[in-house]
Amino acid sequence: MRITFCCTDTAPEPWLAGLRAALPEANISLWEPGAPQADYAVVWAPPQQFFDEQTQLRALFNIGAGVDALLKMRLPAGAQVIRLDDAGMSVQMAEYVCHAVIRHFREFAGYEADMANGKWSFRKPHSRLDYPVGVLGLGVLGERVARAVAQFDFPVNGWSRTPKDVPGVQCFAGPAQLDAFLQASRMLVCLLPLTTETRDILNRDSLSRLQPGGYVINVARGAHLVDEDLLALLDSGHLAGATLDVFRVEPLPRSHPFWNHPKISLTPHTSARTLRTESIAQIAFKIGALQRGESVLGCVDAARGY
Amino acid sequence: MRITFCCTDTAPEPWLAGLRAALPEANISLWEPGAPQADYAVVWAPPQQFFDEQTQLRALFNIGAGVDALLKMRLPAGAQVIRLDDAGMSVQMAEYVCHAVIRHFREFAGYEADMANGKWSFRKPHSRLDYPVGVLGLGVLGERVARAVAQFDFPVNGWSRTPKDVPGVQCFAGPAQLDAFLQASRMLVCLLPLTTETRDILNRDSLSRLQPGGYVINVARGAHLVDEDLLALLDSGHLAGATLDVFRVEPLPRSHPFWNHPKISLTPHTSARTLRTESIAQIAFKIGALQRGESVLGCVDAARGY
Repeated sequence: MRITFCCTDTAPEPWLAGLRAALPEANISLWEPGAPQADYAVVWAPPQQFFDEQTQLRALFNIGAGVDALLKMRLPAGAQVIRLDDAGMSVQMAEYVCHAVIRHFREFAGYEADMANGKWSFRKPHSRLDYPVGVLGLGVLGERVARAVAQFDFPVNGWSRTPKDVPGVQCFAGPAQLDAFLQASRMLVCLLPLTTETRDILNRDSLSRLQPGGYVINVARGAHLVDEDLLALLDSGHLAGATLDVFRVEPLPRSHPFWNHPKISLTPHTSARTLRTESIAQIAFKIGALQRGESVLGCVDAARGY
Repeated sequence: MRITFCCTDTAPEPWLAGLRAALPEANISLWEPGAPQADYAVVWAPPQQFFDEQTQLRALFNIGAGVDALLKMRLPAGAQVIRLDDAGMSVQMAEYVCHAVIRHFREFAGYEADMANGKWSFRKPHSRLDYPVGVLGLGVLGERVARAVAQFDFPVNGWSRTPKDVPGVQCFAGPAQLDAFLQASRMLVCLLPLTTETRDILNRDSLSRLQPGGYVINVARGAHLVDEDLLALLDSGHLAGATLDVFRVEPLPRSHPFWNHPKISLTPHTSARTLRTESIAQIAFKIGALQRGESVLGCVDAARGY
């Protein structure tokens, strides 16, 4: 069994060492042009040449949760795309979103600014019943985030393409229930996969349906959000703020109005990082299962887009 | 049945209206010197004259979780001191502590500073196994906080005076196990009642036992912490930082070195506010139970101090 590794923006040595330790029987090497045909590939943003040459791949492991970029490439026929299935990402997402939700609800940024100015301030506490949280997307990440937010007694709504049932979460499904979901929510968390159906889903029309004083947390993909629509609704006052981790162009260009916007908190695409140890263990486990002819989690349906 | 209300720093009208709505059969009034003897009192930081005059009280309801200030006063013999039992405070504590723990672990303040400087930065993620959280005090608030932190997969230790059993939390008890608890923890959360035994418990000796890079979150009382010992351990580098909500003198005096300390985050005693609606409902319920001769939660043992 031959495994090839082709991940841009990633130091290959620790991954190769980890994969070799986890799969000692396999022949594992860093891809280079003209390399022999492999059975499996571990990839992140590989060049098209990689796929043009590696025509015998049985499965492609994407070391991330989103496969939108990968599915835009010409992939070898017969190669099953497999994405990471949690692998330590859901807890990071839960942390990121709970931090953002609590920080906004409790006005901690305001308190910090007051204290930095030497001011011992009082701010009237809000009722959490006035801050229902809506989670767009109830996959592995969205469900964990929804459950984590519900721990803090916020009303939580969830929306997914197909009906889901999550304890403690009021679940909505399909395009017909999207407006009702938005109208029931004030703080909106986007954890959708990026597909032709979800691109630009956070736009002036949808964000206007959020309850007044709405708040947007985007931890999925920059292309879910229409940047100028967010800015217009922040200016109009319908939205109170946003926490954004992902952007249409990354790194965010220096000229972009999101930089230093008083109502927007930014982070540099760090909400949920791929964790090497967890990812290697999961990929090795899945390769073992595929070799035994068993099914694995995280298989991507290219037509569906995730 | 007569109920008297005497709370400094609190607008009395909404409390009186709420108590009257909840207990329509009771005679409820704002205390003033020379007022008739009452059966029950709802208090926060009343003057000593209040207790000197109100000698027939059967129970005193403190509208806060901590009764350290109240127990320093000469109280009428026969008056049972009853503190709020959660009443919406535990979820606020869980929010506050999780926000502080996540913010430190994920370096969100650092990311925000980077982004404010126009810098799209990368910071190496930490392993949560290297950030065990220790919760001092496993009462209603401490237990909820410990469970909430455990949701984010941190190792969680708990310490209490008497042995407790909290699922997902490694529990330590009594003075003999305090050092082992501290040595097993890196992020320390103080949620103890303030008693003669716990005053100054966060000192150079105890805080030195935390794992290197320790972090202190004090949401109990300022007098738990020896301010100069915290500052010395921050200077030495043994401690990485602190989030403090409570202080020996409040508001924190302008000359205090905690203000604008680069490693200390401050909030103005806002971690868990008394919520009027929840508190009134709880006090009314407990008065009904006492009238029927039933026992209630939150009865303070004056000798124990909480």
